[in-house]
Amino acid sequence: MKVTFQIENAAPVVIEGNPGDNLLALARMANVAIDAPCSGNGSCGKCRVKLIEGQLDTIPSRHISEEEFAQGWRLSCNCKVVGDVTVFVPDIASAYQSRMKTADLSSPKEVAIFTACQEDLKNSGIHFENDCRAVVLTMAEPTLDDTMPDNERLSWAIQEALGVEKVKIPYAVMSKLAATLRAHNFTVCVKGRVEENAFFCMDICAPDDTRIVGCAIDIGTTTVTMVLCDLTSGELLAKGSSGNGQIRYGADVINRIIESGREGGKKRLQDAIIKETLTPILANLCKTAGINARSILRLCIGANTTMNHLLLGVDAEPVRMEPYIPSFFGWEGLLAGDLRLPANPLAKVAIAPNIGSYVGGDITAGTLAAGFWDKEEMSLFIDLGTNGELVFGNQDFLMSCACSAGPAFEGGDISCGMRATDGAVEAAVIDEATMEPKLTVIGDEGQKVVGICGSGIIDIIAELFRCKIINARGLFCREGERVKRDAYGMGRYVLATEDESETGREISINEVDIDNFIRAKGAIFSAIDTLLASVDMPMEAIDTVYVAGGIGSGINMANAVRIGMFPDVELEKFRYIGNSSLTGAYAMVMSDEADAKCAEVMANMTYLELSTYPGYMDNFVAACFLPHTNASLFPSVM
Amino acid sequence: MKVTFQIENAAPVVIEGNPGDNLLALARMANVAIDAPCSGNGSCGKCRVKLIEGQLDTIPSRHISEEEFAQGWRLSCNCKVVGDVTVFVPDIASAYQSRMKTADLSSPKEVAIFTACQEDLKNSGIHFENDCRAVVLTMAEPTLDDTMPDNERLSWAIQEALGVEKVKIPYAVMSKLAATLRAHNFTVCVKGRVEENAFFCMDICAPDDTRIVGCAIDIGTTTVTMVLCDLTSGELLAKGSSGNGQIRYGADVINRIIESGREGGKKRLQDAIIKETLTPILANLCKTAGINARSILRLCIGANTTMNHLLLGVDAEPVRMEPYIPSFFGWEGLLAGDLRLPANPLAKVAIAPNIGSYVGGDITAGTLAAGFWDKEEMSLFIDLGTNGELVFGNQDFLMSCACSAGPAFEGGDISCGMRATDGAVEAAVIDEATMEPKLTVIGDEGQKVVGICGSGIIDIIAELFRCKIINARGLFCREGERVKRDAYGMGRYVLATEDESETGREISINEVDIDNFIRAKGAIFSAIDTLLASVDMPMEAIDTVYVAGGIGSGINMANAVRIGMFPDVELEKFRYIGNSSLTGAYAMVMSDEADAKCAEVMANMTYLELSTYPGYMDNFVAACFLPHTNASLFPSVM
Repeated sequence: MKVTFQIENAAPVVIEGNPGDNLLALARMANVAIDAPCSGNGSCGKCRVKLIEGQLDTIPSRHISEEEFAQGWRLSCNCKVVGDVTVFVPDIASAYQSRMKTADLSSPKEVAIFTACQEDLKNSGIHFENDCRAVVLTMAEPTLDDTMPDNERLSWAIQEALGVEKVKIPYAVMSKLAATLRAHNFTVCVKGRVEENAFFCMDICAPDDTRIVGCAIDIGTTTVTMVLCDLTSGELLAKGSSGNGQIRYGADVINRIIESGREGGKKRLQDAIIKETLTPILANLCKTAGINARSILRLCIGANTTMNHLLLGVDAEPVRMEPYIPSFFGWEGLLAGDLRLPANPLAKVAIAPNIGSYVGGDITAGTLAAGFWDKEEMSLFIDLGTNGELVFGNQDFLMSCACSAGPAFEGGDISCGMRATDGAVEAAVIDEATMEPKLTVIGDEGQKVVGICGSGIIDIIAELFRCKIINARGLFCREGERVKRDAYGMGRYVLATEDESETGREISINEVDIDNFIRAKGAIFSAIDTLLASVDMPMEAIDTVYVAGGIGSGINMANAVRIGMFPDVELEKFRYIGNSSLTGAYAMVMSDEADAKCAEVMANMTYLELSTYPGYMDNFVAACFLPHTNASLFPSVM
Repeated sequence: MKVTFQIENAAPVVIEGNPGDNLLALARMANVAIDAPCSGNGSCGKCRVKLIEGQLDTIPSRHISEEEFAQGWRLSCNCKVVGDVTVFVPDIASAYQSRMKTADLSSPKEVAIFTACQEDLKNSGIHFENDCRAVVLTMAEPTLDDTMPDNERLSWAIQEALGVEKVKIPYAVMSKLAATLRAHNFTVCVKGRVEENAFFCMDICAPDDTRIVGCAIDIGTTTVTMVLCDLTSGELLAKGSSGNGQIRYGADVINRIIESGREGGKKRLQDAIIKETLTPILANLCKTAGINARSILRLCIGANTTMNHLLLGVDAEPVRMEPYIPSFFGWEGLLAGDLRLPANPLAKVAIAPNIGSYVGGDITAGTLAAGFWDKEEMSLFIDLGTNGELVFGNQDFLMSCACSAGPAFEGGDISCGMRATDGAVEAAVIDEATMEPKLTVIGDEGQKVVGICGSGIIDIIAELFRCKIINARGLFCREGERVKRDAYGMGRYVLATEDESETGREISINEVDIDNFIRAKGAIFSAIDTLLASVDMPMEAIDTVYVAGGIGSGINMANAVRIGMFPDVELEKFRYIGNSSLTGAYAMVMSDEADAKCAEVMANMTYLELSTYPGYMDNFVAACFLPHTNASLFPSVM
């Protein structure tokens, strides 16, 4: 039977189905983008399609009202095919992509944080030098008396210029050698890397094309960020980011692993990250920087264990299933060509090493960037991503754990949430008497509100709580102009009316948003609590708290403590370090020593599995209040 | 304008052309196989097509009779497009492929020669050991108490089994690691190569899949031959050959280089050898041997300099143009994946090193196989291919040169010529009185005649000359039952009538065939003459003559001397060694030491450029008689 997908703003797609086939599964087989963050278990309500012609066998869903059902709306994950059918697919592709408008390093403040971390690393004795070289060579042109073949002529010139014993010329260079030498009268630029006493050629080009480029990539579950840098000077050449295209197969790592285990799933998820996400960003950055992709000679990826595995298209199921065995923690051997990335195919792709199934390379790279691995003082490192990961320790020991926070810190799971970029509310103060807000919006003077980023949400919830507009459970308990309720009685606080906002939509935060956020912060705090308890240390033992992640440099640490997200320590102990996974990956691209140090950090880190750790669940439940059921943990708030 | 090729036994192909476009060039652009051994200069007459509809701007050709012209026959290389046109393309693809029916190692005699060469190499102290290994490993299955990731678990097991310090796992193995380990309960076979103190994994598979395979390839200008062997035992697993698909772009290396310099030419010639020739043979051999292509871990190619360059798709024009500079003589760095050969993509492909523009790896591999590089006695090595190449010397010096002989020795350029396989006349005796022949035909008892291979042609011409049926210029000078003449008076000698032959066609040799052959043998003899003169040595100095090439083990050395092809030395000095390029390549696949020895042989060899050597052309003209204009060179014949 014929299943036709009429896709908004795109050509229709037809696929042959059998009775009983799941509609969402068919859409995926046909590569029709339908957003399903819950991976098709009916819980998220995002995979809506509209029945146009024919019938579908469906079960009722709380996400589809009676009126909507009558209009033809269905959840595709809940539908089975029974005959020829035509459905309309709203432009969901853009829906999941819009969630991802993002820009790490988009503000001078973020760039300053990034740069400061690199300086700290240099001060720790890490030399920013790598194995890549570009060298301009002038050779004697061959004559009847000098008939040395091209490869030997080139090898001699390189040996002389670089003082290496051996020159390795791979096929990619050999196949263009004769033509390039002759096109430039035997004066060329050779790019490659030094390997012990040998030089491995990676490209041969015109003598004026001497730039060699590194690429650092942070692959988050929700967001992907990338920078290009000059491998010689370290200069940032271009930066960019976008959402992780895998999100339509599941908002969290578990749902994506499940999807990857289905038939063709590994390929779908790999394509979603490589073809749909990394390739377009990278191609775009090359254009911005005005470089040829073949000049990218070295890459590093900071990503969590699941993202690493899905990127490589290796089996991720063993990561999720007992006894939780990843294919690798650290692994050297990946080339850009293996993943068909738009870079020099012979470029090595370093993967920041994983520690465990749920503490990955983003954390080892981040820990490297935070720089407390050689200090005496005790530090707590908190990476606020879709997963929250923590590292606690100093030069003597490092202890790590992970908890599932959801995408709230990056503006996901929040009705008006967005990343920390232009138009985002990054800070807020509420007048206790009038309940009127005073918002700080990212962007130029006069920028109107588009949405709320993580740091803004923290401020708003802290202020709503301080002003007693919401109670400890996050429910509205005052009425007023700014507090509205929908037909079902759900309260919301209006930050910007339709007239005041950039988009013409009301920007508000409702009780579901607040509940989602409280769970997220509860997960983080209970993880901190448990981690410190596991090494028998009190909160007071913490000397520095490094806060990393896409939450934005606008984060108000006092408010984060006030809502019970971070431990109640002196505010001057907090330090926001931005996207530390990207910062660490950049250091690893620029520096062989940073790369080696990251492996060393990883080797010294212990992983604590929270899910099976006694007391963690109780801690979590207790932390799902503002600020906490145990008020004694937050003396400064009380 | 629309140019339609109606191809015999295939779907029609349409291409858009412009006025004045050459029809053959358009056909090549459209990938329509039209045989043109002369590369489209009008001299061979093979690129015939028939005009069906429309017009073509053409010039007359001696290859098209008036009658044929009236029927619509044209030489496509002589035609320009003037408007929409439809032409019929006869099944020429099969025409050039049929020239190539061939089988080195097809007879037990040839296999015995092949084996004897390997034994000689072993007796010279070459160990037949290589760096490839297959090792079956049993690992402990992971548990909650033993959570080592898969790659570390595998590395430890390999380190223990092979005593190496380091294990390198490339992406191809990493991407199937988790699944393969679990499919076989952590008992697997790993295949790879030892690199200094490391093991480089190339495949991971089921524990019963332990075979590792080498592949030796001889790429001749006319014929390609290949063997698969077990890398552990050396056993021959499969063998096969076919014509070189490049032949439709030119019968000799010069025409192919010219074609490769045209737009898209490099790609066309590379595709013709890789996709059309090597890939089908290799796939077929894998099937015959019952092995997976991924088990092929090591390859070696023996080929002349031009074939090497065209195979790699590198610029071959500099090989042909002053100052005659190839991209490489020797080059390490090629992987099977670079050429997309159906083998393990990570398998190294060794290329037997070239000596000069016209003495290539087939000769260094052949010299290796002949084994005189460590002997005191003076040897002459003759490789009878489309090019004839010679090496003269001993343990102290090696001198080489090349001459263009054409495909006559492989049965090409001879009307009833064929390779030395079933149905080929490999030897003949003619009764001087009755002029009746007595033929030796390759194959089982009762095998009828299909054609004549190189050794047969030598015998027939020698016998025709001995019986005074032809004169010293190769023209018929006796009449009789077996001697026929066509309408233009051209004589031919009938070996088998239509009734007697296997094919129902008369098998004969005519004056054009004889003339072609005399030129070929003249090229060889004059090259020998010049080479020895260059080192001031007489023919008597030669202790052994090694004869290599596809001419067949049936070669009668006395007759070869009688027609003035080989020098007039004692017959017991001759030794036929078959396809020595393949034999050498096999040795290089099986043995690291043979590989190193070949490079050493190459480094010690001097190349003599005949085309510019004083006296060579005079020598050639003098040698184009039976046996020679200077009879004193052939005392035993006279």
